[in-house]
Amino acid sequence: MFAIAITLLVIEIHVPEPEGRDDAAWMQALAHLTPHFLGFVLSFVVVGALWAAHHRVFGMLQRFDPAIVWRNLALLMSVAFMPFSSALMSTHPTERIPEMFYSLNLFIAGVLQWRLFRTALRAPFLREDVPLADVLAMRRRSLALPLMATVSFALAFIMPGPSNIPLMLMPLVVAWFARGGMRRRQATAANEG
Amino acid sequence: MFAIAITLLVIEIHVPEPEGRDDAAWMQALAHLTPHFLGFVLSFVVVGALWAAHHRVFGMLQRFDPAIVWRNLALLMSVAFMPFSSALMSTHPTERIPEMFYSLNLFIAGVLQWRLFRTALRAPFLREDVPLADVLAMRRRSLALPLMATVSFALAFIMPGPSNIPLMLMPLVVAWFARGGMRRRQATAANEG
Amino acid sequence: MFAIAITLLVIEIHVPEPEGRDDAAWMQALAHLTPHFLGFVLSFVVVGALWAAHHRVFGMLQRFDPAIVWRNLALLMSVAFMPFSSALMSTHPTERIPEMFYSLNLFIAGVLQWRLFRTALRAPFLREDVPLADVLAMRRRSLALPLMATVSFALAFIMPGPSNIPLMLMPLVVAWFARGGMRRRQATAANEG
Amino acid sequence: MFAIAITLLVIEIHVPEPEGRDDAAWMQALAHLTPHFLGFVLSFVVVGALWAAHHRVFGMLQRFDPAIVWRNLALLMSVAFMPFSSALMSTHPTERIPEMFYSLNLFIAGVLQWRLFRTALRAPFLREDVPLADVLAMRRRSLALPLMATVSFALAFIMPGPSNIPLMLMPLVVAWFARGGMRRRQATAANEG
Repeated sequence: MFAIAITLLVIEIHVPEPEGRDDAAWMQALAHLTPHFLGFVLSFVVVGALWAAHHRVFGMLQRFDPAIVWRNLALLMSVAFMPFSSALMSTHPTERIPEMFYSLNLFIAGVLQWRLFRTALRAPFLREDVPLADVLAMRRRSLALPLMATVSFALAFIMPGPSNIPLMLMPLVVAWFARGGMRRRQATAANEG
Repeated sequence: MFAIAITLLVIEIHVPEPEGRDDAAWMQALAHLTPHFLGFVLSFVVVGALWAAHHRVFGMLQRFDPAIVWRNLALLMSVAFMPFSSALMSTHPTERIPEMFYSLNLFIAGVLQWRLFRTALRAPFLREDVPLADVLAMRRRSLALPLMATVSFALAFIMPGPSNIPLMLMPLVVAWFARGGMRRRQATAANEG
Repeated sequence: MFAIAITLLVIEIHVPEPEGRDDAAWMQALAHLTPHFLGFVLSFVVVGALWAAHHRVFGMLQRFDPAIVWRNLALLMSVAFMPFSSALMSTHPTERIPEMFYSLNLFIAGVLQWRLFRTALRAPFLREDVPLADVLAMRRRSLALPLMATVSFALAFIMPGPSNIPLMLMPLVVAWFARGGMRRRQATAANEG
Repeated sequence: MFAIAITLLVIEIHVPEPEGRDDAAWMQALAHLTPHFLGFVLSFVVVGALWAAHHRVFGMLQRFDPAIVWRNLALLMSVAFMPFSSALMSTHPTERIPEMFYSLNLFIAGVLQWRLFRTALRAPFLREDVPLADVLAMRRRSLALPLMATVSFALAFIMPGPSNIPLMLMPLVVAWFARGGMRRRQATAANEG
């Protein structure tokens, strides 16, 4: 499902019709699409981070129940909605409401992921051989998107336009959390050794 | 396939072009999309419930035959059609025929799921270690959508507009059936113990 | 891939804009979409039959090589093209060239499937425990689409409009072949017994 | 993900509206779509080659880490972008900038695949039972797309139009590399024998 939503992001970028046929007209037409290209990259990175985390967490589980299925569907719904809010923001990249709408979508996705992980990453769903440090890393990691979406939402209200810069840092933030998890895992291994 | 149909629901929501560029114009433009947002949520919940049930039932089977394959394809066809009937209803949210068309699509999907489960959930397809109570729960559960779609269809005929309210209760109804299944399973376990 | 192409068939059916808002105008608007609905069902059945056969054959294989990968990609290409040729035919349901184009697409898909199965259903790719009768059934079955597409192509040339009737019989023809395979399998089992 | 991007290539080909309804008008309308058909085939072959290689390499791995996940997401992003750049080139098949844009997309995808394979095809990710010759074949193979995209980019600059001919040779080039790998594997086997 993440794979489908992430691939559908592209279909909202339409082939431009330049005013002339020379190279300069084409460069200008493509330059006008810059917000769409940036929006595509940004949404791809955010959905990609959600996807990677989702894949890792479900690899840590040994069984589900209806509560997890419905929490998961709620998360998927917010991700499936991304192609719309991404297109909305890309079409109007410097306006307040579209940017706040986009940040709100991300915030909801982030909260639903956090809620899903909090429910799933414990008995009786969690596999017993998963190190505690990995579980804690995933739980902390699921706070990254809600936090960054909140900052982005506030920035969109104050100064629309550069409000998505914090979201661009998503891979770095996630890597920072992942490294945090690694370090703890090594510490745990050292303690066990 | 459910994952694809459920994700395609979003592509019928188009970016609005507000009359002005101030916040009020944007809020109004987004407010006009409310039926599309509600239609997206409703169809997502219905297809999600079908998907979850489908996934569970196919996990209970040990083999297929052509009869199951074709019954399954018929169900998938009715689900793949949902993005159209969902867009039809969302574009004309208070008109009788679009709403009846939508309910009819759901009714057909519900009947095809019921028919598929009735065929599949027995020997020689059913795995022998599946508790009878689970099988009965899934069979009863597959009655939920046809029943609710019938109510919705009749309501659309009498008073178009609020006719989809029963469908909104889908997760509750399914949960109610699931709990029913749980209780029976406990009863069976107690009898066996 | 089949799942994606089969689901994309729906996105070429667009929400109609009826001339009035009463029930009669709506019924007429939906009636005008009849060729699109029939085209959707027809293409779904054909792609569904290809999908089911593909799934069964790949379950009979134990390994691949580049020749199979490329033959498979060629088949997938002809299937991925179906949403276009299906929309072309549905938009112009009584015209000769769109119908011949559609039949040609099916013919190419049928030949590519036949070629893939002929290459794959033998040593060293075929699992050794697959009964010969099943292999022969799948090989004969892969002749059904090229044959029916040829008939449909010729009919489209002579009398466009009803030229797709033979394709509608796809499930029956496939079932007929499947039963043929069953009967032979029983004969083989009897011989072995 | 490759399956989705490769199937979405078709949705940028729109049903033509011929000037008349006779066969000649239809043949002309379809002839006008030739660049779209060729672009579809070309992009399908390129994405198909990337897909096949990706599938093979991930079958050679025993585990991942965040570095591989993010390198993989970067590759997927460049592939998910293909439906846009493919439509851009197909709509303007003889103009310099769209063709260079398309070649640039392929070049980036090729470089990202090369980078992913270089990182993944070694300890501790590589399964230990994978023959060295296969690893070397995949590494050499991942040079094919960057090289061909560079040639295509230069040709698009000098003489737009026939600049995609080298890309058409993709399956042959990949087969050439695959055969190279086979030969080496046989040589290795002979040495081991």
